[in-house]
Amino acid sequence: MEKISEFTVRRLSNYYRILLDLEKRGIPTVSSQRLAELGGITSAQVRKDLSYFGNFGTRGLGYSVVELKAAIMQILGLNARWTMALFGAGSLGHALFYHQGFRDDGFFFKHVFDVDGAKVGTKWLDCEITHQRSAEETLRRDGVNIAVVAIPPEAAQDVVDIAVRSGIKGILNFAPTQVSVPEGVSLRNVNLAVALESLSFYLSM
Amino acid sequence: MEKISEFTVRRLSNYYRILLDLEKRGIPTVSSQRLAELGGITSAQVRKDLSYFGNFGTRGLGYSVVELKAAIMQILGLNARWTMALFGAGSLGHALFYHQGFRDDGFFFKHVFDVDGAKVGTKWLDCEITHQRSAEETLRRDGVNIAVVAIPPEAAQDVVDIAVRSGIKGILNFAPTQVSVPEGVSLRNVNLAVALESLSFYLSM
Repeated sequence: MEKISEFTVRRLSNYYRILLDLEKRGIPTVSSQRLAELGGITSAQVRKDLSYFGNFGTRGLGYSVVELKAAIMQILGLNARWTMALFGAGSLGHALFYHQGFRDDGFFFKHVFDVDGAKVGTKWLDCEITHQRSAEETLRRDGVNIAVVAIPPEAAQDVVDIAVRSGIKGILNFAPTQVSVPEGVSLRNVNLAVALESLSFYLSM
Repeated sequence: MEKISEFTVRRLSNYYRILLDLEKRGIPTVSSQRLAELGGITSAQVRKDLSYFGNFGTRGLGYSVVELKAAIMQILGLNARWTMALFGAGSLGHALFYHQGFRDDGFFFKHVFDVDGAKVGTKWLDCEITHQRSAEETLRRDGVNIAVVAIPPEAAQDVVDIAVRSGIKGILNFAPTQVSVPEGVSLRNVNLAVALESLSFYLSM
């Protein structure tokens, strides 16, 4: 199974984002204390997370922002170019397709599928929206790394099954339902309500 | 500061969602092992998380799905009704506004603000899109609990400042940038790229 926990990977993502911001502001080094503060966690956790991957810091000087960023970038696989297929050309799909942050990180949409005849044949940038019924054939011919699922919950498992049959190994699911994937396929569920639930927790206190 | 970590609160959200699903499928009880399996974490972690809030389980029988769900619902403040103001009527804002999952959890949009004159005055459901320049005045008169920020990064801090000046205590930020809030205001950043970064990590291995 996956040895490094999902929570560690999420924190690495978080560090990466903080380091990007520090780099943009021209800050050359950062201590684990400062990184912890910016990430809202303890510095012991920061040191533990980074220790999985080797020794980046210099005692007393902290971490080089540029070096640590490059190391985390490589760890997260962000120095590669990843291709994606989007299932669902609704407003969420539209927002995801045009989300600059994905392209900045090396994630590019190559295909968009929908079942709505009014959308099929229209274009987003240079990507023509294709009917979902030809998705499997298209993806077998012209594969991608990741399927992004932005469709209503009742159809989500069918679409995940299409993606898996086409040989896709990574699924990012935005549909608010539990879907299942076979061994060897990675699945991440993005639940838009979860962040709200944590706000309501703090607002209730 | 906040005693229960953000990660614990996120896991509680996750349990809540799993319990909802079990309840829908008519399953009356669940063990911490099964809950851990469904949540992708260890059963020790599940027991530790739930121990913060009292003793819900019966040794050998596991947890009552209905009771545990109700308890977590109350812990997360989901038995309340929360009102929200949406800043940004673009495609992300549209997707969030119509996201059924928010209403199911008791989160309702009361106001929508945008700077685009073509959108101002049009309606989403029974909510009229209002120009952002009247946001502060509107929110002082007719307050909400949470501001949802779905606008380009360069304007995000300004909008957060408007929300804070209006007395809003919870901010959910979708803009891909670091914003700051004063003490006493809770902020959650939703980064759509983070889930992709964890997929690329596993796809790189």
